[in-house]
Amino acid sequence: MTLTLNSFAAGKWIAPSGRISQLKSAVTGETIAELGAELDFAAMVDHARTVGGPALRGLTFHDRARMLKALAQYLHERRDPLYELSYETGATKPDSMIDIDGGIGTMFVFASKGRREMPDDTIYVDGALEQLSRGGSFLGQHVATSLQGVAVHINAFNFPVWGMLEKLAPTILAGVPAIVKPASATAWLAEAAFRMIVESGILPDGAVQFVAGSAGDLLDRLGAQDVVSFTGSAETALMLRSNPRLLANSTRFIAEQDSLNATILGPDAAPGTPEFDTFVKEVHREVTAKAGQKCTAIRRVIVPEAYRDAVVEAISKRLAKTVIGNPRDEATRMGALASLTQREDVIAKARIIATEADLVFGDLDATGTNGIEKGAFLSPLLFSCNDPDGARSIHEVEAFGPVSTVMGYRDMDHAAALANRGGGSLVASLFTHDPAVARKAVLAMGAHHGRLYFANRDTGKEATGHGSPLPHLVHGGPGRAGGGEEMGGIRGVMHYMQRTAIQGSPDILSGITRTCVQGSKTALKEVHPFRMSFNELEIGHTLETQARTVSLADIEHFAEFTGDNFYAHMDEEAAAANPFFPGRVAHGYLLLSFAAGLFVDPAPGPVLANYGLDNLRFMKPVSPGDAIKVRLTAKDKKARNEEYGEVRWDVAVTNQDGEIVAAYELLTMNAM
Amino acid sequence: MTLTLNSFAAGKWIAPSGRISQLKSAVTGETIAELGAELDFAAMVDHARTVGGPALRGLTFHDRARMLKALAQYLHERRDPLYELSYETGATKPDSMIDIDGGIGTMFVFASKGRREMPDDTIYVDGALEQLSRGGSFLGQHVATSLQGVAVHINAFNFPVWGMLEKLAPTILAGVPAIVKPASATAWLAEAAFRMIVESGILPDGAVQFVAGSAGDLLDRLGAQDVVSFTGSAETALMLRSNPRLLANSTRFIAEQDSLNATILGPDAAPGTPEFDTFVKEVHREVTAKAGQKCTAIRRVIVPEAYRDAVVEAISKRLAKTVIGNPRDEATRMGALASLTQREDVIAKARIIATEADLVFGDLDATGTNGIEKGAFLSPLLFSCNDPDGARSIHEVEAFGPVSTVMGYRDMDHAAALANRGGGSLVASLFTHDPAVARKAVLAMGAHHGRLYFANRDTGKEATGHGSPLPHLVHGGPGRAGGGEEMGGIRGVMHYMQRTAIQGSPDILSGITRTCVQGSKTALKEVHPFRMSFNELEIGHTLETQARTVSLADIEHFAEFTGDNFYAHMDEEAAAANPFFPGRVAHGYLLLSFAAGLFVDPAPGPVLANYGLDNLRFMKPVSPGDAIKVRLTAKDKKARNEEYGEVRWDVAVTNQDGEIVAAYELLTMNAM
Repeated sequence: MTLTLNSFAAGKWIAPSGRISQLKSAVTGETIAELGAELDFAAMVDHARTVGGPALRGLTFHDRARMLKALAQYLHERRDPLYELSYETGATKPDSMIDIDGGIGTMFVFASKGRREMPDDTIYVDGALEQLSRGGSFLGQHVATSLQGVAVHINAFNFPVWGMLEKLAPTILAGVPAIVKPASATAWLAEAAFRMIVESGILPDGAVQFVAGSAGDLLDRLGAQDVVSFTGSAETALMLRSNPRLLANSTRFIAEQDSLNATILGPDAAPGTPEFDTFVKEVHREVTAKAGQKCTAIRRVIVPEAYRDAVVEAISKRLAKTVIGNPRDEATRMGALASLTQREDVIAKARIIATEADLVFGDLDATGTNGIEKGAFLSPLLFSCNDPDGARSIHEVEAFGPVSTVMGYRDMDHAAALANRGGGSLVASLFTHDPAVARKAVLAMGAHHGRLYFANRDTGKEATGHGSPLPHLVHGGPGRAGGGEEMGGIRGVMHYMQRTAIQGSPDILSGITRTCVQGSKTALKEVHPFRMSFNELEIGHTLETQARTVSLADIEHFAEFTGDNFYAHMDEEAAAANPFFPGRVAHGYLLLSFAAGLFVDPAPGPVLANYGLDNLRFMKPVSPGDAIKVRLTAKDKKARNEEYGEVRWDVAVTNQDGEIVAAYELLTMNAM
Repeated sequence: MTLTLNSFAAGKWIAPSGRISQLKSAVTGETIAELGAELDFAAMVDHARTVGGPALRGLTFHDRARMLKALAQYLHERRDPLYELSYETGATKPDSMIDIDGGIGTMFVFASKGRREMPDDTIYVDGALEQLSRGGSFLGQHVATSLQGVAVHINAFNFPVWGMLEKLAPTILAGVPAIVKPASATAWLAEAAFRMIVESGILPDGAVQFVAGSAGDLLDRLGAQDVVSFTGSAETALMLRSNPRLLANSTRFIAEQDSLNATILGPDAAPGTPEFDTFVKEVHREVTAKAGQKCTAIRRVIVPEAYRDAVVEAISKRLAKTVIGNPRDEATRMGALASLTQREDVIAKARIIATEADLVFGDLDATGTNGIEKGAFLSPLLFSCNDPDGARSIHEVEAFGPVSTVMGYRDMDHAAALANRGGGSLVASLFTHDPAVARKAVLAMGAHHGRLYFANRDTGKEATGHGSPLPHLVHGGPGRAGGGEEMGGIRGVMHYMQRTAIQGSPDILSGITRTCVQGSKTALKEVHPFRMSFNELEIGHTLETQARTVSLADIEHFAEFTGDNFYAHMDEEAAAANPFFPGRVAHGYLLLSFAAGLFVDPAPGPVLANYGLDNLRFMKPVSPGDAIKVRLTAKDKKARNEEYGEVRWDVAVTNQDGEIVAAYELLTMNAM
């Protein structure tokens, strides 16, 4: 049965027409699907900009995060048919889990971060307030708002589901609509997952569209408010980023390119150490998982020259035991490449590497596997290179399959120099138990790699693997890796938003960010703010307490009661010798405690608990006889669930001269 | 006298040779300087990468910040001759202050931020620790390290000193060497300031080089570790960013392009309001300051249609009183354009605008001023446009001189749409006293502008002006503004560093960042850590205290003493009804106070003061009869001056079951 892959444009499914292409199963070589798009790209871009964008921007970050969570749950419950389709891409069950469960998990993480790290609002506050004037009447603040264009996602063939979802999650969270263009080779799986997203009805109209087939002149229609996010080869990336229209409009172009990632066996990780064993396992896993078709796969294995033979032997032993074949068979450990074309390309690249390195495992001509002659199977190929300084191809030619090259190093500087020869990569790993070696590596190599992965006996089973990008961390890298960044938590959301510096008075900044900015108008009210429910409480509601004098007896009593007999509180002469104190002073904790005594409203009410305190600074010492009072202002609110939410209060404790002696942010949990 | 402008390459001054160009005074039209470089660009790039880069990377952020401060002081003391040279660029004294003092001030701000917001180390820690595993043995953290290449700075002619220093400051702070290429038209001023930098001897060899003349094939020699920072026109930017070598290497290209910046008179700012008056003054200032040759100057004046005539009249009145002439004359308010070529270009562009808008002030043919026929003088030109929706040139053609167009709007949505017609700008301003109008503007316009400036009666004299980029805030913008960002405090430093995600065990992460990461090895020592001086204290030094039981009597006594009689501490039944408490519980401040009583070492010693507390969270209630103890670990150190420094301690308060009841970071000031 041949699947017909439809596009989804301006809210309608569009069947293939015009030049139709046949897609083949990676396992059997039979036609599995056909696609070919004749789409009105101008209308698609317009639909995204005028329908999808405004709808998404009307929702808060929390609304969007909730949609992502619902979508992730919807996909999670329906993922079985996706596994079936995934086998035909050559993927084993574990390979498919990286793709399908990994993609859904990424959505869950963005949903969670959106709720925890972004406000329930449409404006994101970036970084701290900047004091631009002495008097405080003019302040600066960075904010971020949704781009008003469309994100075009151009995805790679190797992870059709993960690749789509890891881009969609931050884009939707940013409030930006997307047009998804999957790689044709495995588009049947991407289309099936995309169809579920549409069928869920969770996203607003225009939020997502899908191109099954060529992207035609889509990029020529983009402008300054649009974004192109690309994953794939350096060649294709270069062609796309050279588009004159994108260059003329400074259109954002985020590229995540396949790179020649390296792993280093630390100088301390001799054969026999736990690090050596973990290293061998990890290299084997990276060569065989997804048949080596990962943008993060280990292409270069950099080891102390003295251990090179031992490493080659240990990896080869594991490779020899690896069962290659039909990914549906449970015994299979490595499936097929995505297509015959892909296999040809890998073999051609491996032949180039073979001119500078020795093939120590595998056979360049052994392609058939277990009698399946038509599938895109290939034996793993391990090379060993005697002259890694002189050789070029091992650092520059990427065979995007189960191919890796072992090379020796003299010392860590040499190892780092070899790793950096890749010209920029997504990830490099180092197996060491020595923190000093790790630090040295970060300084020598950090600038060349988007991620540095350190594994050893301590990380044990919790380590997530050299090849696994995580939604919490940036994925991307300089140079050959494309110079871009994806994910990285909220950083990844910012790629679809514009950062803007805003300058103005405290009231204006308060009005924009809907938080109480220092110096902005506050409302001194008769009613105690602790009597207001979460929903009733207005930002700016302020309480000013009575004063309380702090006596020497209070200080001495507090010292005795708590056991805190620090000399600055107890010994006049020693205290006066301290550069910060005029003589004996009150304990900071005594001030906090008295302040609470002044502002707390004792009877049961909406305030359920004081759950924390941030940014406390003691600004000026309080001497016996000083009188303190407190000013408390509702600064920010954040709903946590249906029943209660967090309120952040600005607290200023002042003395009889009106000077601030302590300032902090108080956190309470308030009932709705 | 004709100045000979030298280049500074690989540590040597190089006199002009080959094709030599003559530079003319903007005021007199006489030749003032000559330049022409025949430089070995390969050797310059190599010198930066192999000499300057390693030298700078060997210094910590604090070391580099101290160099910037020293350099700023050095230039500040020697700035008088720079003013002299600046007159010849057509700049008045106030114009020169923006350029010279503004540039020096930017260096001071970066010096200060480098010390306050970056560590005394070579690795910058970016953002929070990411918990990647349940057990805590595998964590993630983003760090940034210096790029290992060279930054090529291509500067604009209008602010030769500020333009050079605002790029050099973050570059040097990042630990990256720079090659400075000033615009030829005003290169004599840039060369004089650069010469002072070299003569100061403050920067290490190879940190800075200077190209007086054409940059030749310099960009063709750059790679993945290099950065190009450009300020100037969109046309030149497009040519440079299309360089195939830069595209193929994903070389970072930061462009700050002249844009058609807008200002909006708020709907509430009717004639007679303070906002109206401030608005008129600001437009006048932006049209005339630096003869309108500012990348941030107001090109489009967007006002309520009903007030358009009043605005035109008020601005024209001020323009009529503006004295144009020799910038050395004290009466002069507006000097000359930078060159005759520049004036020709401005007039040509103004003639295009004149096809769609009416010239309401000025004369396109009146170029001579006060008898100085050879200078590049031009009268201010004010246009008024009747059809701003239909017109294109007013939104797309930039006359880079004293030229601006007034247009009317119907409502704020229309005003925002007109402002956004610029296709991306560096800054837009809005004069309003209404925070709701400001918020609406941020949502409607934020995505199109790098900075939004709000002025009104409250910002008064402290407001820094529509046209002033500040080192604390990002300077740049989407689309026509180049899609880049400069400055913005530490954000600007990051443009010259690579962000890398690091993953590993707590010990490995601690070793890399030199702070104590949760879960990393700590050293439980006999000696109390409060007995160690700042220098002696080792990160990881840990104290574990005895336990103390919290009795009901303690709670009641504390309530009475402090006055904090919150029901959760005092009323068993009401407390039990609270969703967070099992019954009566201890006050959070009681726990903090008892904790201090447990860990404080009373006698005078290196710990001078507890100056604050961060990230306090109460994790679990403490009931009467529970016994608490404290674990205190030195987490991070930061020298403040020669005598003392700040120490950050991780504090965990646990109960008798080992559960954490409160966690926070304690800040102390410790003597060296």
